[in-house]
Formats: sequence, structure tokens, C-alpha cells
Amino acid sequence: MQTFSKRVSMTVVKRLPKYYQYLTDLQDQHIEKISSKELAAMMGLTASQIRQDLNSFGAYGQQGYGYKVKELKEAIRKILGLDLQYNCIIIGSGNLGHAIVNYERFKEEGIHFKAMFDVDPDQIGKKVGDVTVYHMDDLDAFVAHHKIDICILSVPQKVGQETTDRVVELGIKAILNFVPLDLTVPDDVVVESVNITDSLFTLTYLINEEEENE
Amino acid sequence: MQTFSKRVSMTVVKRLPKYYQYLTDLQDQHIEKISSKELAAMMGLTASQIRQDLNSFGAYGQQGYGYKVKELKEAIRKILGLDLQYNCIIIGSGNLGHAIVNYERFKEEGIHFKAMFDVDPDQIGKKVGDVTVYHMDDLDAFVAHHKIDICILSVPQKVGQETTDRVVELGIKAILNFVPLDLTVPDDVVVESVNITDSLFTLTYLINEEEENE
Repeated sequence: MQTFSKRVSMTVVKRLPKYYQYLTDLQDQHIEKISSKELAAMMGLTASQIRQDLNSFGAYGQQGYGYKVKELKEAIRKILGLDLQYNCIIIGSGNLGHAIVNYERFKEEGIHFKAMFDVDPDQIGKKVGDVTVYHMDDLDAFVAHHKIDICILSVPQKVGQETTDRVVELGIKAILNFVPLDLTVPDDVVVESVNITDSLFTLTYLINEEEENE
Repeated sequence: MQTFSKRVSMTVVKRLPKYYQYLTDLQDQHIEKISSKELAAMMGLTASQIRQDLNSFGAYGQQGYGYKVKELKEAIRKILGLDLQYNCIIIGSGNLGHAIVNYERFKEEGIHFKAMFDVDPDQIGKKVGDVTVYHMDDLDAFVAHHKIDICILSVPQKVGQETTDRVVELGIKAILNFVPLDLTVPDDVVVESVNITDSLFTLTYLINEEEENE
């Protein structure tokens, strides 16, 4: 669905949040430098993979010294676009929507929740933290008056694609998708999906594979 | 952390829930057969990848006919271990815990939620659907009296590893982890993680990559 030129492989991109998390933890522990070997051991990779990954983003360690934790963390933060601010709406104010609004890490990283939307009359007008739940009828007007960068989608599966179409129509270019559906979007819209069911099914697979090998 | 012999690569395993979802949808639409080419188009893969994936599990299509949807779905269901029943507890009765208990797809696939656990006095004794929230002090006794196959972990990050250690100590062999942590577990315990923060950070990366390419 996406046609951007892949200068860096998605495998490496998918590892970046992990690097960022480890470097944040290291910084919290006041550790100032780390070798590719140490980082590799923490992340379950090889030192050469680490060097290759980081080189591909122009982050080079110093021979015999390694990487400066703070510098490397800031570099990855910038690569991940976390030096910027994002306005975000959530469609679907169920338990999952609530969980996301209350997720502290999001706020820490420049994600601003501007509004939630739902069709359930019992939800409309409620506040989750300082975020108000509006009716879906108000979506167009709201998005027209606020610069919304990200839509978090946690609606029932049967309205997943039509809600996506509406969001895309309104000009929102990024969707974090919790609906167990492969959404169809134009080339200039990015989608990242969190599929809880897929993870559960992978786990049931692993449980049985494990038992067979015992 | 896991040492089972990888007869089938994790890349293929990770695609199985997707196959299962598509085949379920096809069956719901009363479609009886599908070619590897059609399935490939739906899933964004090549026909040869599809054939290879399915062959590796002993599912062979018929030349000029393709796959019988019902048969293939049942085969994958069995491979995923979804023909079995699983008793499950949830530790952490926050919004995410609530969302999971209410997730319909889980119940449909033989996942039985037996109990939730928390330390928040306001939560203890409450019911989420027909699932009771117990105090963490009651965890050991509960697990001793029920055969628990899966623990879903949605606790704060700072108690993620210690809660895992306790769960492992009680003999639970599978964890669906929502804590943004790489959990350390013995070789005979399987962990599958859902990392919402990682997905968000991948999205912010993609937003900026997209903009650079415009």
C-alpha cells in the first residue's frame, strides 16, 4: 500500500523503538557510554548487526569507546520523529480507547490527545482525563478546525474500513490501527497496526510447539 | 530466550493468524475454494510465497483447483492450537485488562478468562463481565486450584519483570505481554509481546519518512 522509497529496511526501522527504549533505560541509570557488544547482548542481536543498523542512520560508534548513550538516544529520537509534536484523535471510546488516552508514555513523547469520538450516546460528552468524547457527527468539523496528525482507530471490525475511508477523506495521513483488519489506504497515508488477536494466536501456536518438543 | 527447534520459521508462523483471518472471512462469505494467486493478492504476498508457506505445514493445494477454504482454515486452526481450550488469567485490571476480557474474538477461539488480579483495593471483588477481580495475594492459591495455561500481563512497567517471575514460579508456561519490557523467562516459557509504544514510534517514523519523500 505504501510506495515510499525504502532507504532503510523495515526490519531495521522496527528495531528502532527497541533501541530507543534501551537507551532511555540506560540514560535513566546514568550510564554514559555503551559498546555495540553490550547493546547487542541486551537486545539479543549481534554486535555487527547493531553497528550495521546504526550506521545505516549515520550513527557511528567510536573505535574502543562505543556509543555515547545520550547522543545516540537523541539521534534515534530524531529519526523516530519524536522531536516533533503530534495532534491525535481516537475513534472508539471503549476500554481500549481509554487505555490509550491514559498511557503515560504517549504524553511523554509529544503525542497530544485532542478528542475522542464515538456513536454511543452514553459516552458522548464524557471526559477521559482531560479529553472529551464527541459524537462521530462532529468529526468533520473538529478535524477541519484542528491540525490532526494521527488517528487512533479502535472501532468494531465491521465499521473499520468505512471509518478509515472517512478519516482519509478528511486528510489525516497516519493511522494507528487496533482493528483486526488490513486497512486499505491511499499511498500517501501510513498505517501501523496492533493486532492483539494475531499475538494471541502466535502464543497458542508456540504453546503447542513447545509441548511437542518436550 | 526460547530454544525450541524451529521447524517452521517465525516469519511464516507470524503470517498464520493472517491466513486464518482471511480464510475465516472467506468462509463467512460462503466462498468454498481459493487459488494461491487469489490468496496472494488478498494478503499482499506472491503466489509462490503462499504455496511455500502452506507446504511447510503439509497443506498442499490441488493443481488447477487451489485450496478448499474450509479444509485449509481447519488445518491452520489446528496448527495454531485453536482446536484446544485455554484457561487464562489477566494480571492488571486497568482499562487494557477490561478491553481484553471484553474482546469477543478471544472467547470465540476457546480462550476462557478465569480471573483477573490487581492490587488496587477499589478493583478487588469487582466483576468484568463474568470475570471476578481478585487481590494479587490470592494469585498463588487460585493458580494452584485451576489449570492456568496463559497469563495476560498488563501491569505497570516497574513491576513487569517481578510479576513475570512470580507467574513463572507458579508454573504458568505462556505469557501474553502488554508491558513495554523484554521479559526474561526460562526456556520452557513462551512469551508473545504486544508493544503499543513500539507501533506508535514506527508510525511517527513513517510519517516523517513520507513527508521527506513528498
